[in-house]
Amino acid sequence: MSGTIPAKKGTSMIIGILGAGQLGRMLALAGVPLGLHVRFLDPTPNSPAARLGEQIVGSYDDPELLARFAAGLDLVTYEFENVPTATAALLAEHVPVFPPPIALANAQDRLAEKRFFQQLAIPTAPFAAVDTQADLDVALDIIGLPAVLKTRRLGYDGKGQVVLRQREDVEQAWAMLGGQPLILEGFVPFVRELSILAVRGRDGATACYPLIENTHRDGILRRSVAPAPELDPQLQALAESYATRALDALGYVGVLTIELFQTEQQPALIVNEMAPRVHNSGHWTIEGAETSQFENHIRAVAGLPLGSTAMRGYAAMINLIGDLPAIQAVLAMPAAHLHLYEKAPRTGRKLGHVTVCADDMPTLLERIAAIEALV
Amino acid sequence: MSGTIPAKKGTSMIIGILGAGQLGRMLALAGVPLGLHVRFLDPTPNSPAARLGEQIVGSYDDPELLARFAAGLDLVTYEFENVPTATAALLAEHVPVFPPPIALANAQDRLAEKRFFQQLAIPTAPFAAVDTQADLDVALDIIGLPAVLKTRRLGYDGKGQVVLRQREDVEQAWAMLGGQPLILEGFVPFVRELSILAVRGRDGATACYPLIENTHRDGILRRSVAPAPELDPQLQALAESYATRALDALGYVGVLTIELFQTEQQPALIVNEMAPRVHNSGHWTIEGAETSQFENHIRAVAGLPLGSTAMRGYAAMINLIGDLPAIQAVLAMPAAHLHLYEKAPRTGRKLGHVTVCADDMPTLLERIAAIEALV
Repeated sequence: MSGTIPAKKGTSMIIGILGAGQLGRMLALAGVPLGLHVRFLDPTPNSPAARLGEQIVGSYDDPELLARFAAGLDLVTYEFENVPTATAALLAEHVPVFPPPIALANAQDRLAEKRFFQQLAIPTAPFAAVDTQADLDVALDIIGLPAVLKTRRLGYDGKGQVVLRQREDVEQAWAMLGGQPLILEGFVPFVRELSILAVRGRDGATACYPLIENTHRDGILRRSVAPAPELDPQLQALAESYATRALDALGYVGVLTIELFQTEQQPALIVNEMAPRVHNSGHWTIEGAETSQFENHIRAVAGLPLGSTAMRGYAAMINLIGDLPAIQAVLAMPAAHLHLYEKAPRTGRKLGHVTVCADDMPTLLERIAAIEALV
Repeated sequence: MSGTIPAKKGTSMIIGILGAGQLGRMLALAGVPLGLHVRFLDPTPNSPAARLGEQIVGSYDDPELLARFAAGLDLVTYEFENVPTATAALLAEHVPVFPPPIALANAQDRLAEKRFFQQLAIPTAPFAAVDTQADLDVALDIIGLPAVLKTRRLGYDGKGQVVLRQREDVEQAWAMLGGQPLILEGFVPFVRELSILAVRGRDGATACYPLIENTHRDGILRRSVAPAPELDPQLQALAESYATRALDALGYVGVLTIELFQTEQQPALIVNEMAPRVHNSGHWTIEGAETSQFENHIRAVAGLPLGSTAMRGYAAMINLIGDLPAIQAVLAMPAAHLHLYEKAPRTGRKLGHVTVCADDMPTLLERIAAIEALV
């Protein structure tokens, strides 16, 4: 199906989405004005997206459920990268799956991911596979300290990783993580964390959003600013060359996110990881870009022309984590846009975000500070 | 309830909407990120908004249905001005109704509407009530020709009105419209048609959007441009003074639209009519204003702070009427945003609209022309 434009008009397509969290919710919202309908599969009843389409509740591993989910769909996409590859393969027998399942395979395993970038001559942190304690010793000799020991699979928001600063840390790290496939990564001394969102259509057309500056705390994204302050056009060009190489190598369709470290030496950008989906660091695009990441993902997978990724002024996103601030106070802030996900409060949980826009960076930074004071 | 802020957080409110057409659809979409839920009442099954909330299908006159509709709602609003006043009154016994039913009474009857503006010293076309053929003769003597004979109630998109250019037209006009309450209006020689959208919160705070230039054909709105080209700040101030006077006089809550004629003599703005609701001429606010008319209506009725009505550059709206253009071609246009209502094609029917944005007016006008060539 790749490369073809569907015969159906946008008005009559039904898109299946694996996962009905906030990303599925915002994808579905972007589809409504285009006349697109969605169906979700998610094990959690009454997920944030469920009010915007039919939700089939159940496991991603149940072949009967998957067949019921796929029936009548025009295509399937997903909101999280840990979709079991068997699930994607099974669905792909019935209906096109975008982004292509090969992207899932590369994104789910930190080792496969690093090797994928290595093959494309895209710089990453030095790395080594670690299956045994002996592997770890060898890897430490090669990579040195500090380094980060990570599980290859299912890590997110800083979970499943331990920083090794000195040889004494190694034993405890092994005790915590040993016994599963691991990877040791060299520590990259970075100036700041950035991300780039890129989108590729079914016809191979690509577009990139401006680089975004991301601030994490306790391993969770707290704030994104776009474009990244004091952004050098050469840095943007470098990030776009990484992104388009990855998109083309994967025959990708949809939005791809690449997280990057900016360093003080060459190469100026080191890839941290990729997510084959719309991304928290791109939520500001709803108000801050000509076309949001959600609409562009939907346009791409539906075989529609991509929309412009140009900025509309300056924008930032502040996550609402754990509990909600006073809604009235947030809405009273100039140019603040509230997005609630309707999830129950819980420590460390993303419950919503605020996008704030401005015509210049100093005003944007003032507005960010005012909102962060409420959060 | 007016003037109070609801104790509930936005996240748990349920808003009832009378009418589930495209306006209800866009109101519901604006409510999702704020965590607000909607329930619709509309006699037509599977209306454009039905996918965004529960739709109760049935008549606006059925007291039992109205009770079922109102049960558990935090408030009721509406997407059309012909809500029967008895319906609004009945609902208001159970739950707050915003905008207030008095606004409906004034907007539904062209005579009451003209008298309302007259009391506020807001200029309208000269007018006279016409119940009998004798009334019409007297009215013609006072107002002169040309003039427009209109039904007082249920006119929209140019329906229910006849232009009288010479005495010979009168007999036929009376044959067409006589036997129901009518109004004769003097013909206003206007330079262009404008509208202003204003919003008032439950706390009495008000805000106005910039004046919009509207182009009609066959009595149906085809295009809106915002801000109205070559807009004089004094004209904006005059329109805002009309709007805020009307809002305050009605103790209004929500978005109010006033359609205006711009003339070459004083007063430079004559009121044509008002609509106590969000309006087709304000659809561009989704992309073109800091806060859309839909979000501001929802914020107002829910007792939340109003959002900024500032423009984000220049914007225009082109209606898709009767049948749809090639969707792919529209989406390929720079800065074009497609909004489909998922209605079956029918002559004269509004099936969707395209919003187009630009950083300057000449670019906007070029983009409008390119889109209109497709429509």
